[in-house]
Amino acid sequence: MTGTTTLYTLPEPFVTESGETITPVQVTYKTWGKLNQDGSNAVLVCHALTGNAEADEWFPSLFGDDGMLNPDEQFIVCSNVLGGCYGTTGPWSVNASTGKRWRADFPKITIRDMVRVQQLLLSHLGVTSIELALGGSMGGMQVLEWLCMDDRIQKAVLIAMGKAHSPWTIGFSEAQRRAIRADRNWNGGFYAPDAPPAEGLAAARMMGMMMYRSAPAFQRRFGRNLQDGHADLLQVNSYLNYQGDKLVKRFDANTYITLTEAMDTHDVSRGRGSYEQVLGSITVPVLVMAISSDVLYVPAEQRELAGLLGNARYAELESDEGHDAFLIEFPKMAEIYRTFNQNIISTDSR
Amino acid sequence: MTGTTTLYTLPEPFVTESGETITPVQVTYKTWGKLNQDGSNAVLVCHALTGNAEADEWFPSLFGDDGMLNPDEQFIVCSNVLGGCYGTTGPWSVNASTGKRWRADFPKITIRDMVRVQQLLLSHLGVTSIELALGGSMGGMQVLEWLCMDDRIQKAVLIAMGKAHSPWTIGFSEAQRRAIRADRNWNGGFYAPDAPPAEGLAAARMMGMMMYRSAPAFQRRFGRNLQDGHADLLQVNSYLNYQGDKLVKRFDANTYITLTEAMDTHDVSRGRGSYEQVLGSITVPVLVMAISSDVLYVPAEQRELAGLLGNARYAELESDEGHDAFLIEFPKMAEIYRTFNQNIISTDSR
Repeated sequence: MTGTTTLYTLPEPFVTESGETITPVQVTYKTWGKLNQDGSNAVLVCHALTGNAEADEWFPSLFGDDGMLNPDEQFIVCSNVLGGCYGTTGPWSVNASTGKRWRADFPKITIRDMVRVQQLLLSHLGVTSIELALGGSMGGMQVLEWLCMDDRIQKAVLIAMGKAHSPWTIGFSEAQRRAIRADRNWNGGFYAPDAPPAEGLAAARMMGMMMYRSAPAFQRRFGRNLQDGHADLLQVNSYLNYQGDKLVKRFDANTYITLTEAMDTHDVSRGRGSYEQVLGSITVPVLVMAISSDVLYVPAEQRELAGLLGNARYAELESDEGHDAFLIEFPKMAEIYRTFNQNIISTDSR
Repeated sequence: MTGTTTLYTLPEPFVTESGETITPVQVTYKTWGKLNQDGSNAVLVCHALTGNAEADEWFPSLFGDDGMLNPDEQFIVCSNVLGGCYGTTGPWSVNASTGKRWRADFPKITIRDMVRVQQLLLSHLGVTSIELALGGSMGGMQVLEWLCMDDRIQKAVLIAMGKAHSPWTIGFSEAQRRAIRADRNWNGGFYAPDAPPAEGLAAARMMGMMMYRSAPAFQRRFGRNLQDGHADLLQVNSYLNYQGDKLVKRFDANTYITLTEAMDTHDVSRGRGSYEQVLGSITVPVLVMAISSDVLYVPAEQRELAGLLGNARYAELESDEGHDAFLIEFPKMAEIYRTFNQNIISTDSR
């Protein structure tokens, strides 16, 4: 199925949670399928840290017959997040008031800011009801905030994240940010567009990639095999360096810092009361899916989140792929979702 | 108890496993207690990546009444490893042939090279028999190689490491090395002594520290608490940056690269045959101790190692402190060791 990519400019200046103004905010988003007459068949997909609006590329087999999404009947929307570098305003965008890229001057943003931009977009599109909202990792954080901030969502799937960013996960972000800032090109975040802190960002990505995977997955894939044609280069090192370099070609370092900081401030209770109150009052059906081998967002966090939510079901995706399983194990995810869906239906028809 | 620190210079040039010559090799070592008449009461303690010969500082309560070591009866030796920066020849040392520090010209070394230097030292000291050899992490790798290379060891304790460095653990090393090399001061490893790649090394250390701990330990210690007096600085970030900066003051970046590369090439089977043959032929009693929450050297590796060794007992130290538990949980370690010891005695007296 082919989607449509569109650029939308918010009509008003956008004021962040921290009180800073960004204007204009442009949002690049992609849609699949058609919104129905009363605007009630929308599905919201939220992307993760280095993802983008092209959900059909990173969630491929969730679209279609055996997947979770059906563009023949649903109007599916995925937008690049605020602060990102894929067409929505962020540090890499040109600041209208200076004529230069924002770079390190881009305001600190939160997951809630991302959500408020998406809310404005969906209202602009005429969406009155969201059948399903779905996201993993940073995408799941956005969906959880949506559940607190908007009553249009009818059902949600939260994958591989928790009620707040844990100190464990924050620590990994901070180590990665320090690697970026160590780079010879960093210059306090005001690096030249053609001379980015490539080595630091690559090192950060390598660290990230490790945490997105798992010891057994690495063992299965690499063992202690040597890279072809290199006497002493282990495959795992060659793979990781390649992944680091690959991200540098498609991602901006200030953006990486902006988005990881937004994730670090993720805390669904901030300014709202206790977790019990905030999460207990969410009564739409929510599927909280953990990945058994996730070392970054450990399953205990998702079990806790499901327990605190007013109407949630906890499920564990059995996989040794680690955190990234939500970008890999599509048939298992779809199967867990089907079971969840059947339970909602049978509960509704009691 | 007070130890004695001594500098020993190997009488011959040292040829590494890779065929390069280092001369002279100096070894700084510390001893506690007195070697007996026939040289048979020695205990060898091997240190980990950023450790040093001061075992009484990093293994404090293992010395003494309830610990594993007894300087009243044993002659305990711990030496700074080859390639390190605490008084044994390494990248930070002055290369006699140039009059300058070795820096990135220091030869690649292996765990076996470290062990060969220690063998020469212990022979020089008159040690004929090693009652106990003990080490965790990189220290354990040295003890395992000792078991293959020398028949003086009568009993060994291997903590938190495996038969070879896993691709998972190698990957973390590689990401850390890339962070060091990203630093503005790196200069291909030929940085000025007074302008080291401090930011890169700090980032590497922060990444390392994360993997040495665990999600539950971080949760217990930090939660989402803010640092006193800072409106938005999380305690965990402040702690990690402090740990990064602290290492920079006491450790050298080339040394970090040299030693992590030595760990990455750790493979007890290299050039010797199958793991079954090599490890099965080791028949002295070995205690293989895993840490239940170790995410870096996962317990499965230690179970496998114990299964392959000819005469090993596997034990799991229950702790949520992660890999670093072997530098923290002394009473538990001593207790596991006592049980192991009693089993050896009861088996011997059958």
